[in-house]
Amino acid sequence: MNIDALDTPTLVANLDVLEQNIDGMAAHCHQLGIPLRVHTKTHKVPEIAKLQIAAGSQGITCQKLGEAEVMVDAGIDNILIPYNIVGKPKLKRLTTLLKRAKIIVALDSEETAVGISQQAIADNCIVPVIVELDTGSGRCGVQSPQAAQRLAQQMMKMEGIDLQGIMTYPSNGRAKPFIDETLDLLSSDGIPVNIISGGGTGAEAASKEIGCTETRSGSYIYEGMTRVGSSEMLTPERCVLRLIVTVVSTPTPDRIIIDGGQKTFTSYPPTPYGHIVEHPDAKIYGMSVEHGHVNVSECSHRFKVGERLSVIPLHQGMTSNLHDTLVGVRGNNVEVTWKIAGRGKVF
Amino acid sequence: MNIDALDTPTLVANLDVLEQNIDGMAAHCHQLGIPLRVHTKTHKVPEIAKLQIAAGSQGITCQKLGEAEVMVDAGIDNILIPYNIVGKPKLKRLTTLLKRAKIIVALDSEETAVGISQQAIADNCIVPVIVELDTGSGRCGVQSPQAAQRLAQQMMKMEGIDLQGIMTYPSNGRAKPFIDETLDLLSSDGIPVNIISGGGTGAEAASKEIGCTETRSGSYIYEGMTRVGSSEMLTPERCVLRLIVTVVSTPTPDRIIIDGGQKTFTSYPPTPYGHIVEHPDAKIYGMSVEHGHVNVSECSHRFKVGERLSVIPLHQGMTSNLHDTLVGVRGNNVEVTWKIAGRGKVF
Repeated sequence: MNIDALDTPTLVANLDVLEQNIDGMAAHCHQLGIPLRVHTKTHKVPEIAKLQIAAGSQGITCQKLGEAEVMVDAGIDNILIPYNIVGKPKLKRLTTLLKRAKIIVALDSEETAVGISQQAIADNCIVPVIVELDTGSGRCGVQSPQAAQRLAQQMMKMEGIDLQGIMTYPSNGRAKPFIDETLDLLSSDGIPVNIISGGGTGAEAASKEIGCTETRSGSYIYEGMTRVGSSEMLTPERCVLRLIVTVVSTPTPDRIIIDGGQKTFTSYPPTPYGHIVEHPDAKIYGMSVEHGHVNVSECSHRFKVGERLSVIPLHQGMTSNLHDTLVGVRGNNVEVTWKIAGRGKVF
Repeated sequence: MNIDALDTPTLVANLDVLEQNIDGMAAHCHQLGIPLRVHTKTHKVPEIAKLQIAAGSQGITCQKLGEAEVMVDAGIDNILIPYNIVGKPKLKRLTTLLKRAKIIVALDSEETAVGISQQAIADNCIVPVIVELDTGSGRCGVQSPQAAQRLAQQMMKMEGIDLQGIMTYPSNGRAKPFIDETLDLLSSDGIPVNIISGGGTGAEAASKEIGCTETRSGSYIYEGMTRVGSSEMLTPERCVLRLIVTVVSTPTPDRIIIDGGQKTFTSYPPTPYGHIVEHPDAKIYGMSVEHGHVNVSECSHRFKVGERLSVIPLHQGMTSNLHDTLVGVRGNNVEVTWKIAGRGKVF
């Protein structure tokens, strides 16, 4: 089928560029000598995760338990969930999932650890965990090497927990003193550290430099418009995703309206909302829920109702989460339709 | 089941308040003497649309054809789609849907009209249409009464189209001269006008005043946090939706992290992202994709990992579109789980 036969707005992925990005990151990490554990939050498509594993990723990362369940359903068996698993329903799901795949979870508090331990005891299993360090991101994570040590000491006394190591995000030089001191303290307690997980697309070399045993990279898979312009190496040609949209109204000479708005692109600020590939001088200046508002005052091209445009979305992970399917194209040929199986797995 | 047994983050609706809002708007429109045609874009739940119809709405409005299909599947048979239907796949779906329900579509160009006419001829049916006027919203719509007249004249010559009237959004005094002049011009051409559709929650009286035959109101169903504070009458108690979330990390005395972020609440700017009902002095100051970052420096309460909170989301329509289900509660009792069947119907 030709791409022009697709209804709009449709999310499509350029498979050639997707494969380039997968191979490029795999080669980059191989060259650096840092094992890659891809983060699948950006795409949420099991088939893409499998391509990443086939290219050398040693497993995957899922931000939520529900996404991990989807990936295990698809046959993926090595998953890090860098998220505090809290509450009875999720703890039960975690131990259930653990019987089907190798799962590691991150945590940052005694409360989370106790919950996991109690559920593991009840279900007669051992949960591998790592301690999240807040080395500057200001989100979750223990606040000091001493706090990491305290939590590790507490966990060593708990049944059902197998403390495997530590994690940080993002990997950078600022994290090194925190990590090094934590390693010293754990070593002095005789607590072995098998995993030092770092992360962030673009931080692969930093992960290696600060001593990580693996690096988590996610957004590289599509490359985002937010990164276009932030690096000389990155151009729209590297961006995998396009939203194929239709011009549905040309109300004034300066304005056209496309059939995708916040519900199609997400409302992620700031503007621009996306980059129109065929007419970069046409600027999406606003969006209502179902319409995109485009300023065409600087375009010589005269747009017509029914004309189709290809738009690179701004925040590719949030955009993917709004769509049920992703259409893989090679040139103008539709090659595959993937279900975005991890979409909406908020639990 | 008790609400505390729900996994988090879960989107719940207070059914008592929902019913109050439905009955209140129905009574308001009845008192004004303006027929109501509810807009379902905010909730996308057929069961709620049916409650609105049972309370007196003369039909519904769906922003996208895919949402209309979902509503027809659920047995609703009178739908306005105020959206230019463009392109072969959608035109075919439109004529197919027309065999199952009374559908009216809005349009603003000859191109859209020709597409509808050709498909209607091919499928041997008549499509009821209304002309969208841009009376100040700056989105779609013809730009002048003369342009409305021209388009109406063109359509009167087309087969397969039944011109029924005009529409505007939002209803306000500025629209009146535009509407009145359009009516005069159409009248002088002998073109009958059966429908003058106005809209916008809070604009019901304006719809009546400017001569509309119906008013479209949508966001009143939930009342949004964006409207809290904009009117003395509107308080958080009127807001139907809550996201039940769990505290998953308390990394510093000033900061807690909840298990819902942009993928749960949407990234709709500006801050605040939501209102924490139990602790209004706890401020959600930022969100990453799966985490909400809350400043608790002004709270005397000491938050614990595992504690549950109820958050009123900022943009209730966009938030609903991120969830597969809506749980209806009465007090702390879970009464019903509805599928958000119109979610993600971007086509």
